[in-house]
Amino acid sequence: MFESVIEFAKTHSIRIAVILIGAAFLHNFAMIAIKKVINRTIRSENFKTERDEKLRKKTLTSTVNTAIRAVIWVLAILLIMTEFGFNIGPLMAGAGIVGVALGFGAQSIVADFLKGFFILIENHYRVGDVIKINNDVSGTVERVTLRETVLRDLDGRVHHIPNSEIKTSTNMTMEFANVNLDIGVAYETDIEMLEKIVNEVGQSMQTDSEWEDKILEAPKFLRISDFGESAMIIKIVGKTVAMKQWAVTGELRKRLKIAFDKNGVEIPYPQRVIRQISKK
Amino acid sequence: MFESVIEFAKTHSIRIAVILIGAAFLHNFAMIAIKKVINRTIRSENFKTERDEKLRKKTLTSTVNTAIRAVIWVLAILLIMTEFGFNIGPLMAGAGIVGVALGFGAQSIVADFLKGFFILIENHYRVGDVIKINNDVSGTVERVTLRETVLRDLDGRVHHIPNSEIKTSTNMTMEFANVNLDIGVAYETDIEMLEKIVNEVGQSMQTDSEWEDKILEAPKFLRISDFGESAMIIKIVGKTVAMKQWAVTGELRKRLKIAFDKNGVEIPYPQRVIRQISKK
Amino acid sequence: MFESVIEFAKTHSIRIAVILIGAAFLHNFAMIAIKKVINRTIRSENFKTERDEKLRKKTLTSTVNTAIRAVIWVLAILLIMTEFGFNIGPLMAGAGIVGVALGFGAQSIVADFLKGFFILIENHYRVGDVIKINNDVSGTVERVTLRETVLRDLDGRVHHIPNSEIKTSTNMTMEFANVNLDIGVAYETDIEMLEKIVNEVGQSMQTDSEWEDKILEAPKFLRISDFGESAMIIKIVGKTVAMKQWAVTGELRKRLKIAFDKNGVEIPYPQRVIRQISKK
Amino acid sequence: MFESVIEFAKTHSIRIAVILIGAAFLHNFAMIAIKKVINRTIRSENFKTERDEKLRKKTLTSTVNTAIRAVIWVLAILLIMTEFGFNIGPLMAGAGIVGVALGFGAQSIVADFLKGFFILIENHYRVGDVIKINNDVSGTVERVTLRETVLRDLDGRVHHIPNSEIKTSTNMTMEFANVNLDIGVAYETDIEMLEKIVNEVGQSMQTDSEWEDKILEAPKFLRISDFGESAMIIKIVGKTVAMKQWAVTGELRKRLKIAFDKNGVEIPYPQRVIRQISKK
Amino acid sequence: MFESVIEFAKTHSIRIAVILIGAAFLHNFAMIAIKKVINRTIRSENFKTERDEKLRKKTLTSTVNTAIRAVIWVLAILLIMTEFGFNIGPLMAGAGIVGVALGFGAQSIVADFLKGFFILIENHYRVGDVIKINNDVSGTVERVTLRETVLRDLDGRVHHIPNSEIKTSTNMTMEFANVNLDIGVAYETDIEMLEKIVNEVGQSMQTDSEWEDKILEAPKFLRISDFGESAMIIKIVGKTVAMKQWAVTGELRKRLKIAFDKNGVEIPYPQRVIRQISKK
Amino acid sequence: MFESVIEFAKTHSIRIAVILIGAAFLHNFAMIAIKKVINRTIRSENFKTERDEKLRKKTLTSTVNTAIRAVIWVLAILLIMTEFGFNIGPLMAGAGIVGVALGFGAQSIVADFLKGFFILIENHYRVGDVIKINNDVSGTVERVTLRETVLRDLDGRVHHIPNSEIKTSTNMTMEFANVNLDIGVAYETDIEMLEKIVNEVGQSMQTDSEWEDKILEAPKFLRISDFGESAMIIKIVGKTVAMKQWAVTGELRKRLKIAFDKNGVEIPYPQRVIRQISKK
Amino acid sequence: MFESVIEFAKTHSIRIAVILIGAAFLHNFAMIAIKKVINRTIRSENFKTERDEKLRKKTLTSTVNTAIRAVIWVLAILLIMTEFGFNIGPLMAGAGIVGVALGFGAQSIVADFLKGFFILIENHYRVGDVIKINNDVSGTVERVTLRETVLRDLDGRVHHIPNSEIKTSTNMTMEFANVNLDIGVAYETDIEMLEKIVNEVGQSMQTDSEWEDKILEAPKFLRISDFGESAMIIKIVGKTVAMKQWAVTGELRKRLKIAFDKNGVEIPYPQRVIRQISKK
Repeated sequence: MFESVIEFAKTHSIRIAVILIGAAFLHNFAMIAIKKVINRTIRSENFKTERDEKLRKKTLTSTVNTAIRAVIWVLAILLIMTEFGFNIGPLMAGAGIVGVALGFGAQSIVADFLKGFFILIENHYRVGDVIKINNDVSGTVERVTLRETVLRDLDGRVHHIPNSEIKTSTNMTMEFANVNLDIGVAYETDIEMLEKIVNEVGQSMQTDSEWEDKILEAPKFLRISDFGESAMIIKIVGKTVAMKQWAVTGELRKRLKIAFDKNGVEIPYPQRVIRQISKK
Repeated sequence: MFESVIEFAKTHSIRIAVILIGAAFLHNFAMIAIKKVINRTIRSENFKTERDEKLRKKTLTSTVNTAIRAVIWVLAILLIMTEFGFNIGPLMAGAGIVGVALGFGAQSIVADFLKGFFILIENHYRVGDVIKINNDVSGTVERVTLRETVLRDLDGRVHHIPNSEIKTSTNMTMEFANVNLDIGVAYETDIEMLEKIVNEVGQSMQTDSEWEDKILEAPKFLRISDFGESAMIIKIVGKTVAMKQWAVTGELRKRLKIAFDKNGVEIPYPQRVIRQISKK
Repeated sequence: MFESVIEFAKTHSIRIAVILIGAAFLHNFAMIAIKKVINRTIRSENFKTERDEKLRKKTLTSTVNTAIRAVIWVLAILLIMTEFGFNIGPLMAGAGIVGVALGFGAQSIVADFLKGFFILIENHYRVGDVIKINNDVSGTVERVTLRETVLRDLDGRVHHIPNSEIKTSTNMTMEFANVNLDIGVAYETDIEMLEKIVNEVGQSMQTDSEWEDKILEAPKFLRISDFGESAMIIKIVGKTVAMKQWAVTGELRKRLKIAFDKNGVEIPYPQRVIRQISKK
Repeated sequence: MFESVIEFAKTHSIRIAVILIGAAFLHNFAMIAIKKVINRTIRSENFKTERDEKLRKKTLTSTVNTAIRAVIWVLAILLIMTEFGFNIGPLMAGAGIVGVALGFGAQSIVADFLKGFFILIENHYRVGDVIKINNDVSGTVERVTLRETVLRDLDGRVHHIPNSEIKTSTNMTMEFANVNLDIGVAYETDIEMLEKIVNEVGQSMQTDSEWEDKILEAPKFLRISDFGESAMIIKIVGKTVAMKQWAVTGELRKRLKIAFDKNGVEIPYPQRVIRQISKK
Repeated sequence: MFESVIEFAKTHSIRIAVILIGAAFLHNFAMIAIKKVINRTIRSENFKTERDEKLRKKTLTSTVNTAIRAVIWVLAILLIMTEFGFNIGPLMAGAGIVGVALGFGAQSIVADFLKGFFILIENHYRVGDVIKINNDVSGTVERVTLRETVLRDLDGRVHHIPNSEIKTSTNMTMEFANVNLDIGVAYETDIEMLEKIVNEVGQSMQTDSEWEDKILEAPKFLRISDFGESAMIIKIVGKTVAMKQWAVTGELRKRLKIAFDKNGVEIPYPQRVIRQISKK
Repeated sequence: MFESVIEFAKTHSIRIAVILIGAAFLHNFAMIAIKKVINRTIRSENFKTERDEKLRKKTLTSTVNTAIRAVIWVLAILLIMTEFGFNIGPLMAGAGIVGVALGFGAQSIVADFLKGFFILIENHYRVGDVIKINNDVSGTVERVTLRETVLRDLDGRVHHIPNSEIKTSTNMTMEFANVNLDIGVAYETDIEMLEKIVNEVGQSMQTDSEWEDKILEAPKFLRISDFGESAMIIKIVGKTVAMKQWAVTGELRKRLKIAFDKNGVEIPYPQRVIRQISKK
Repeated sequence: MFESVIEFAKTHSIRIAVILIGAAFLHNFAMIAIKKVINRTIRSENFKTERDEKLRKKTLTSTVNTAIRAVIWVLAILLIMTEFGFNIGPLMAGAGIVGVALGFGAQSIVADFLKGFFILIENHYRVGDVIKINNDVSGTVERVTLRETVLRDLDGRVHHIPNSEIKTSTNMTMEFANVNLDIGVAYETDIEMLEKIVNEVGQSMQTDSEWEDKILEAPKFLRISDFGESAMIIKIVGKTVAMKQWAVTGELRKRLKIAFDKNGVEIPYPQRVIRQISKK
């Protein structure tokens, strides 16, 4: 038995040494890499004090280091065990099951990064754009990282959305924007006159020095878009500089209100026709 | 032990050399291929300045290169390790788990490309068509790539939808379009007269020089499609040139309104029958 | 070392030659097969000009060819590498991960084809039928392929639905169709008289030369189907030739309206009982 | 080299012959089996003309045959390649990926058949029953196969539902059915009198020769089931022969209406109490 | 070659014989087991005539037998092929893919049985209980098997729900039940008096000989649970014998109505305050 | 051949014996363990009679025993077959497929237990707490096991929810609870006065001997939380002992009602402004 | 046979000893590690008495220990069995299936931890922030662990949400917050005057000593944001210190109410135009 040990030592000692050295090297390399990544990932703008930031970094570094260290040395031990001729099948099956659970759990993180990659190269939106995600959450983009998109809405609320959850992204401020206004007017209104009033208001806005640099095409009457329950719905469209569509539409509403009042065009309240009979 | 090393060198040196050369070749080839793909994928129309574009390309190229380089050399090292007789089972199991997570995370990207492929060969829509996706988002197609469809709607908003999210696509401007208008008229209306009025309005529109090239079949009264709560609903249908259905329907509404007013056909407000009794 | 190369050449050269020849043969065969499939799949009716069609075919052929070519030669290289005794485990694991991602991404395409197969052999619908899919999208079937169903609705909109998305398909024009009409009449109405009126209208329609070939069973009063808020709801049923149910029901509504007016049967507006008291 | 070929031929020729013969046998057997299955699966009742049916069968047979033939001979070639000592690992990995995609795509078909199996042995419904599926689609069962359930509703529409999509099935005509009628009566109504009226109507219906064979238990007043907004809701229950519940309930509504009118029981319209004050 | 066959026969003939005998034994055993299982599973109460039942059993037995027989003999052939030295890898890969598809398709059936097991040992409900499943389908439990739960509702409709679809089960008749009644009373009502009336009605019901064995705790006024739009909502609670809660609540409503009428407590109709002004 | 059998017997007989003994041991051990587990799992409180309980236990024990016994002896037979040199690959593949289906079907059971584990160690709720699950089902916790949570609601209904279905759990009685009451008051109300009244009512309740031990912070006027359609909505908040929030809020409503009546604060009915015009 | 046992003992005894020692070591190490983890995970703040806490810890420790112990010794036995030359394939396949089920069941737990990791390093929210999760549950953050987020809402209810269920997190108190108030005013209102009033109220609030430290930008009139059914909707925006937005908005509502009353600006009730006609 003794000779076989010696024999074994001769043929396997170098390889075991190589494994140990490789593991040690990888260990150190991983430590440094992780530190770098954490330093880059944690953005100081997210912390109130430098101490907060340092504490967070330290905790994270030590957590991740422990995990990586465990993985590297478990692999090294398994490799050495095979050198000694152990059948590590059962051990690997056990590890595999843990690994599959981890892999499945991590897949949405991977999907976040891949989706984030396409958001960036396809240029869906940039910091400062006003966007809406999945027809649900909207706001100004505060930050786009590979993993998530951060929005801040009109209420000042900050939304964190993982990129893989983004099915449809809607950018409201890409190059230009449109005025698209539906207004209900009384069924008695003279359409020709209405069209003239709306177009005049649109024109006057475009020639107004305060608004002309925000409007690319003057808002104008497009068509009767619906016969509503209590009003005829007309559609008014125009083209504006990006980010200015809400201000232009707001001003347009104000000017239309004044013009309508002057010309007797009514924005009607809900209508009911009552047929009164005595109780049966 | 020394002899075994020499022996080993003899039989394995060529193969190790082949592995190293193959890896180096693949490395260079991948670098060039990636540069090309990125240059093609990033479309200058998406960037404001040339500097923006260059910066983006540079960042992306270096990111992807690092990833590819890591993959190639890790594979090369594993191949060489097997030449030296190491059991790389545990290492591969670890890599496999990472790989599965990546593979699962990437599957929606793959689905995007496959779906995009069918959108293109089955010719679902082209740039310029007005479409609606999943009965939810609609707009004019701005761009169809293998990975996503980009729409711009009437508000000027730009929607990015990954192709794999597209379940039902609805093309509103394929070859031709229809007028399909439901209008509520008072229950007291004479149906025969109404039918005559509607058909006359439809005919007059088709013979109008301004509209005749947009109308393929004059809008006409089809049937009473419902007995509504406060009105009888009639359906009017016609056929138009693609993209012109909204303008034609808008004009038709205007002309019908005028004809109805002239002939005493009422579009009724909501009706209520009131039976008043004194408080019990 | 030199001898071993010669030795190797002797034993392996034939097999390597076989691999190369097999790959070349498969390559050529695939090229031809792909061309055929693309020529069959791309339907000229989908393109405006012949040039458009040719361009599309060319692009597609070259894309698919590149993919197939890559797959065939990578497999050939792997086979040759095993002949040279390389352990290609790591390479195959890498390829496997890519393959799994592709396979997962492709599974919905496979499901499309399998579902399409059953739609065809179980004869769910044919071109020209009016169908509704998943209680959501409806229209006339324009095309049924193994991968998708294409509908055109009354607005002239073209819907593309992948077959695997079809959970419930509803064929409205299979062999025959029914009139199934719910009408609200005043609570004061005499039910016996109403039943007589409805049945007379139904009978008269079936004996009318214009309608008799569209009606299989005359519409008749079935029962009081509900006590509604403001009206008693009655159900009228009949049987018609497929595709004619809407026209028959529309005409039936018109005739019932006239008969009701003549006989004093009221289709009541929404009713309210008001109990007025002075402000507390 | 030549000798080795001879040597090879000796040891392997029988096995290769066995493989080829086995494949040929399986090929022919599959051809016949498929023809049989297709002949049984395609039901002539689904086709208008015999020519249609034949054409469909021919197309299907040739499609499936091509697929089966490809699978059998690819497997045979792989088996022969292993006889010649090729490492077919890479080829099988490629095939495996295609196979997995196919397998995943096919799993809903498999689920259809398994679910269909349980629908049949647990006797959920039979042809002619009126059922509702997933609280969504209802109709008379026209066909139950292992793969799908086909319903026809009152509008004459034919619904195809794959069995695996059936979560809850509701059979409305299993052995017997119930009358379950909620009617709103005025708050002023005398409950004792109402109970008497309802029970009398129920009794009289059961003793009516036209209805007695359809009613198992006479409909009777059960309880005040709710204090509604404008009416007290009472519940009336009874037991009928399966399929007759709608007719019985319809007749019951008619008789109750007459009895209520005679006895001054009111089915009230929506009530509002109005407190009028002069504008502030 | 001839000798090798003899040699082969010597070493392998016993094993092949064992395989064949094992398969035959398993075959017979499975046949008997299946017959037993089918006889137990198909419950005669589900069939109208004995002939129906026999036919169903026969069809099922032969279907399942064919499937089992195919599986056993394919496995036997594969085992024998390995005895003859064939590499059955490709064949098994093919079988594996079919198997995976079957396994995936069958997983919901397995989940049914496991869930059914827990429903039984955790005693969620028993035949005769009134339950509601997933807040959606409710009725009296007619049958609980390992695979499904069968309910019959007040309309006489029979619901089949696979156990794995049951997320939340709600048993309304476990040991005891509660009266939990919300009634709206006029804002003008004197709360103290109301409380006294409600409690008196509750007490009188518990001391009523007809009801005392159904009531465990007399219904009593709990609190004002909401300020509604037109009424103050009060909550009344009590405890009853299981299955009797609906009858008790119905009777309680009747008695409260009488007591309220006698004491001038009003259950108000919807209220509106009207501020009338002349048209602007 | 005879010698080889003897030879075989020598080398393998011990191992086969070990396998058989191991299987027998495991068999007995499992029998005992299962009995114990079933005795612990089935809680006598769930059964009406002891006989019911015994019957259930007996059925379950025999079912599970049969399953376990089958698994153990099939594994033993496979182990012995490998000792005899059979290639059990095909058999194991078959078993694997069944196993995967079982494993997939069982995963929700596993998820139940893991989730239950976290519910217990993170102390989400305990028996007696009033909780709401997934914003859907609420009630008093009757039982929390590793597999499910059992609630009983105010109607006396018992809800069984598997732990893995619990996404959000809401504990309404953790340490303390809040009064959080929104009341609509007339727009004419004097806010300062209202604030004083509300705070006085809150104070008086806290100093009331009946209520002081239930209230931790007196309810007080917080702010105008909304301008409603017909009323100004004010928010009143306070802090109470857990489980007492509903009683306190109910009493608070009663006292506020009295105080409002005394001070002329109106809880307004829905308001409408009517502009009457003569029919057009 | 005896010699072979001795022979076996020589070569394998060391390895078996190593396995046993390794298992024993791991066993002890795991026991200690688990105790530590449980002591850290269970937070005493969650328990009412120290005895409760100890009991829970003890139960958990023993449960987890039993599980870990079973896993370690089963692995050890399998390793030793391979030393004795048993083919443990079948046993491992069995274990693998159990393992896969466990792994799948555990994946949502893993996803919890990974998501929790990103919530912490990306600093989505901290204890004390007011957040909303998935646009569904909102409250003050009480605890953020790697596995779950615990919120307490205004009703005092405690919500437990596993981190992996968090799709969109909305932080309402990140750095600052906004006033974002939509108010409906009568259509007759003079917009210029209204704008002046709103801005004056906003200014006066910012200069009020009680409120100036809570307001970063005075609330001001932004635009007419909609033409509502009964009112013109105006938008008022401002910027406040985080956590103070609700108080500031409440106070702003109060001040606006007073200013509106003083200046005759009306917040209108729902409007209706009534056209009365005599019954037809």
